[in-house]
Amino acid sequence: MAESTNMRLRLPLLCIILEVILIILFGTLVEYNDDTHAKLWNENRTDSATRNDHENEFYYRYPSFQDVHVMIFVGFGFLMTFLQRYGFSSVGFNFLIAAFSLQWATLMQGFFHGLHHGKIHVGVTSMINADFCTGSVLISFGAVLGKTSPVQLLVMAIFEVTLFAVNEFILLSILGVNDAGGSMTIHTFGAYFGLMVTRVLYRPNLDKSKHRNSSVYHSDLFAMIGTIYLWMFWPSFNSAITNYGDPQHRTAMNTYYSLAACTLATFAFSALVNPEGKLDMVHIQNAALAGGVAVGTAGEMMLTAFGSMIVGFLAGTISVLGYKYLTPVLESKLKIQDTCGIHNLHGMPGVLGAVVGAVTAALASPDVYGHGLQRVFADVETGKWNPQSRGGFQAISLAVTLGMALFGGLITGFILKLPIYGAPPDTHCFEDGLYWEVKTFQNNIENVQQTCDSL
Amino acid sequence: MAESTNMRLRLPLLCIILEVILIILFGTLVEYNDDTHAKLWNENRTDSATRNDHENEFYYRYPSFQDVHVMIFVGFGFLMTFLQRYGFSSVGFNFLIAAFSLQWATLMQGFFHGLHHGKIHVGVTSMINADFCTGSVLISFGAVLGKTSPVQLLVMAIFEVTLFAVNEFILLSILGVNDAGGSMTIHTFGAYFGLMVTRVLYRPNLDKSKHRNSSVYHSDLFAMIGTIYLWMFWPSFNSAITNYGDPQHRTAMNTYYSLAACTLATFAFSALVNPEGKLDMVHIQNAALAGGVAVGTAGEMMLTAFGSMIVGFLAGTISVLGYKYLTPVLESKLKIQDTCGIHNLHGMPGVLGAVVGAVTAALASPDVYGHGLQRVFADVETGKWNPQSRGGFQAISLAVTLGMALFGGLITGFILKLPIYGAPPDTHCFEDGLYWEVKTFQNNIENVQQTCDSL
Amino acid sequence: MAESTNMRLRLPLLCIILEVILIILFGTLVEYNDDTHAKLWNENRTDSATRNDHENEFYYRYPSFQDVHVMIFVGFGFLMTFLQRYGFSSVGFNFLIAAFSLQWATLMQGFFHGLHHGKIHVGVTSMINADFCTGSVLISFGAVLGKTSPVQLLVMAIFEVTLFAVNEFILLSILGVNDAGGSMTIHTFGAYFGLMVTRVLYRPNLDKSKHRNSSVYHSDLFAMIGTIYLWMFWPSFNSAITNYGDPQHRTAMNTYYSLAACTLATFAFSALVNPEGKLDMVHIQNAALAGGVAVGTAGEMMLTAFGSMIVGFLAGTISVLGYKYLTPVLESKLKIQDTCGIHNLHGMPGVLGAVVGAVTAALASPDVYGHGLQRVFADVETGKWNPQSRGGFQAISLAVTLGMALFGGLITGFILKLPIYGAPPDTHCFEDGLYWEVKTFQNNIENVQQTCDSL
Repeated sequence: MAESTNMRLRLPLLCIILEVILIILFGTLVEYNDDTHAKLWNENRTDSATRNDHENEFYYRYPSFQDVHVMIFVGFGFLMTFLQRYGFSSVGFNFLIAAFSLQWATLMQGFFHGLHHGKIHVGVTSMINADFCTGSVLISFGAVLGKTSPVQLLVMAIFEVTLFAVNEFILLSILGVNDAGGSMTIHTFGAYFGLMVTRVLYRPNLDKSKHRNSSVYHSDLFAMIGTIYLWMFWPSFNSAITNYGDPQHRTAMNTYYSLAACTLATFAFSALVNPEGKLDMVHIQNAALAGGVAVGTAGEMMLTAFGSMIVGFLAGTISVLGYKYLTPVLESKLKIQDTCGIHNLHGMPGVLGAVVGAVTAALASPDVYGHGLQRVFADVETGKWNPQSRGGFQAISLAVTLGMALFGGLITGFILKLPIYGAPPDTHCFEDGLYWEVKTFQNNIENVQQTCDSL
Repeated sequence: MAESTNMRLRLPLLCIILEVILIILFGTLVEYNDDTHAKLWNENRTDSATRNDHENEFYYRYPSFQDVHVMIFVGFGFLMTFLQRYGFSSVGFNFLIAAFSLQWATLMQGFFHGLHHGKIHVGVTSMINADFCTGSVLISFGAVLGKTSPVQLLVMAIFEVTLFAVNEFILLSILGVNDAGGSMTIHTFGAYFGLMVTRVLYRPNLDKSKHRNSSVYHSDLFAMIGTIYLWMFWPSFNSAITNYGDPQHRTAMNTYYSLAACTLATFAFSALVNPEGKLDMVHIQNAALAGGVAVGTAGEMMLTAFGSMIVGFLAGTISVLGYKYLTPVLESKLKIQDTCGIHNLHGMPGVLGAVVGAVTAALASPDVYGHGLQRVFADVETGKWNPQSRGGFQAISLAVTLGMALFGGLITGFILKLPIYGAPPDTHCFEDGLYWEVKTFQNNIENVQQTCDSL
Repeated sequence: MAESTNMRLRLPLLCIILEVILIILFGTLVEYNDDTHAKLWNENRTDSATRNDHENEFYYRYPSFQDVHVMIFVGFGFLMTFLQRYGFSSVGFNFLIAAFSLQWATLMQGFFHGLHHGKIHVGVTSMINADFCTGSVLISFGAVLGKTSPVQLLVMAIFEVTLFAVNEFILLSILGVNDAGGSMTIHTFGAYFGLMVTRVLYRPNLDKSKHRNSSVYHSDLFAMIGTIYLWMFWPSFNSAITNYGDPQHRTAMNTYYSLAACTLATFAFSALVNPEGKLDMVHIQNAALAGGVAVGTAGEMMLTAFGSMIVGFLAGTISVLGYKYLTPVLESKLKIQDTCGIHNLHGMPGVLGAVVGAVTAALASPDVYGHGLQRVFADVETGKWNPQSRGGFQAISLAVTLGMALFGGLITGFILKLPIYGAPPDTHCFEDGLYWEVKTFQNNIENVQQTCDSL
């Protein structure tokens, strides 16, 4: 067994080959954009028509980028440390596949979103978009958490990032829909992709690792670090790439209210579904975030605080109920082993968010938006826009996303099933010791005893 | 006993009713303000007199808002995880009552701070103010930590937020005083309100839970996460709602220096009051923050780095001495059981901050402030201003705040004493197991053993 | 022994004397700068030539400052909590010496970087610079971690901050080189200073504390909090004090790509150097950050994403190899006991960064930079600039820095060797219990048992 999961050649080889390919592609394809290039930004500096430095997109987007960055690396990373013996892998593999994905996403998204004379232009907006795409991969990681080798995860990321970029291109560039916070592109896509992957990788004997597939007291506290950071910075996530000014401001605020309402729903239903009325950390850690997912599309629209709170409350409710009643059924009936319950946090709330987005778009009118209309719905001025068709396109986008995710997950799942990646055996899932140097419990006890004795 | 603390109906019912009321009130009363509304922000966009997007208040305040948000949810939440068996409740109940309070505060503050044709206008500034009010509730939470049910905490929040808004209205709108960082409105109010509540809820037999009312090694490290985040972001807290430009810049810097000096005082006196010269985590976790509290009023004034450091040094000193010598007396003589020692971190430093604010305001002169005077002291131009009266009003505000806090805490305390909220029995205070699904220690040991054996 | 490490008088005395001196010096020397002073900022406000508030440097630099602040207090503090019994000291002493150093650095840097009529002017830029200097001290702390008393650390900080300011003055003001992210001034200086100090403080019998000089499972997770925050915010660190506009934007992006590539190299080589292909937490926690260090000088230049990724990949590689093969040799042959392996994280990558900076500067041309040239290389317009001489000056700066660091560390090491600071005995290194009130393991077990029994 030790042999089959040995990463000594597999992981270095894959990492080095991938990074070398990335470096070569960046060298041939990637250029600074106008706001990061010394020459281009300062082109007219001696003229009267000079741009002021405060107009550089850096100052509009960089604080949001950093908040998103924290969600990707601390939020997702620590959220998954709830498992008692999988903290190193949760934070560590999250770190690895995120670092890879953001580079690969820069290329894939740049390729699809418009080359400039054959070159990809990069700046803070492309950095945010790359982090977004990475988020989608990390959502899928949540479904297969504990049951995959780092090599499998990197391979999954290669395919998922690519398909994410294709789907995003269809939605944003071809269908021209709105999805600033990614209810569809990020959450729905990431969730159903991951669920399909874990379905294909179904392990009938996963029970052998059951005793490790749960939390201990301190691991739940580490996970709360992830939860709280995701919760706090979600307003930045949804608003990070909206238009400047009122849309960015409004999106952040709508998300803030949606999450607050969602949190009350989560506590309410977590206590309600427990016979003794006790709260379940799994719900608090996850369902309280569903409100951010569910306003990912409509958040930039004139959803109002009122609307946001209703959406958030609904999202929290279905998420808790999903954890309690749906997840066990998915596992027993559909053979979907969803370690983190991403269907409840990203799947259903993502679909809800897509529906809310379609309805809100269909109800948009110049009466409400005034001159701000074209700043939210980009193609208003081109004349091809009317609210109803817009709502229809939003709905079509959801269907496209679900199709792409399920199909992509299916293919990727079968690729990941090849017995060459050093996947953990059923008896050693959810266990850091396979891929990390970990001191044994006995070691630790002895160390502590020795320390005590010497005092 | 299990019966009396069962939250199965109480908590869901209260959460759902509160959230439904909030949603209805938001639906009828709350509107986007000029900077978040698509129509209003873009009204003149086709005219020559167009506003630039960078003038949207979002770009002046949102980074500060996010820092404040981190303080409220991570700072306060993790600061209280120092108890060995109360980490879930500390972070979790903090999360719940903060999510409720920020919604309720938006309504209460909006109601008192000026309706616009009967409507409350919301944007990033109202979000910061709501977080501030929430901070006050969380300070009070610190006094009753471990001895209250989540239902009690929500009921406390209902009353405290309301009274906070009234007190804030009296101070800022009627008396017209300065308190940008809330030495009075937030810290003094929250502290004395909470102390009065815990006085009314006095438990003569709390000793039965004494063995749980302390930290273990790792819980102290979790608490340090809270401490450090509060410490780092306090400059953002105090400067979040000052005027743009020099006041915001100056406030952040004054707070930075106050906290640095406070930290040295904290380490000095923590070692000094211990017979073996050993540092006490309780002091480091709490007293090192007193410097931020104590410049909450004067921080935006021309206090200078020099003045800030003196104030910070004093605040750290009285805070450590308070923990060492005053807290035991408060408990034994006045029957005030103050779990987190909020009197030392928020009470005394808050009063110190109010006094420093009054003195600094009384010394303010056009010589020092130049044209910046009216940007710090709002009513200079109306002519009713002179430094001495200003100082007097600041001092009166402290008295008003103390009165409101003590009276409000008294009433609220008696309301919370009703035996209907599922409060924990004396034998089970400071224990997560009452309200949370927690694996027992035995469980954990067995799990870990099983894991080790299988390796 | 208890006697000799007793801090009861030593620590309070030193802290109070230092803070009193700081307060006096601040009172006599420090003034608000133009952007923080109420009068100066608003001087022309009534004129037509009024400055807009958004031009206040606060809005360009404060978000970066807060990210840097997080790196200093959470990043460095928690990174060092990996030791099983030294978490309080890691976070706590980091907190203490950082709070002191940033005040002392404000004075020293202000003194060397240009007095204004005998006064030091402070604002957000001086706050960032003070945090940078503090970072250097914390790097050195990493070398002596676990083997020094807090008094020793404060004394080290006094000398190191002073020499840092001198070295920075020589590099930036006399030689006029670039080093915005501090590959030389911060990392190389801090690393070699610390290595020399720990060399002088060599303990031949440190083996007696060997059992405590390692991590346990949860301490490694706490350390990952530090790692991830350093990693995420490094783009802010390197860009915090570059010029506004394209340089700040470009620096952040270059650093982002360097770190991403570095992370893949770290995972690759960590698995490769382990016989079983298992990843080592020490590598992930540290080497993954080397990419940020290595673009500290060249990050603001037109290094391109391509160049940044190559540099990051190299940095991660040499860092892992350093931990694996060089650190043991440094200890056995050169008697350098480097607790955190700062030579691998800051030393070698810092030198690499200096060399990359020299080469990139030597290759800089107006063709590439256009009018942006003088915004990166300050003295272009004065005519004394040509790329080759610039590259030469950068290289000379590295030599100066190494000389200053080694010489300064030597002197400081001998000063710290005096037997008056309460240093821990060889048998009690890496142990919080010497300087902190810590419950014993036995205590904890009893507490937990009692808790369980009572349920």
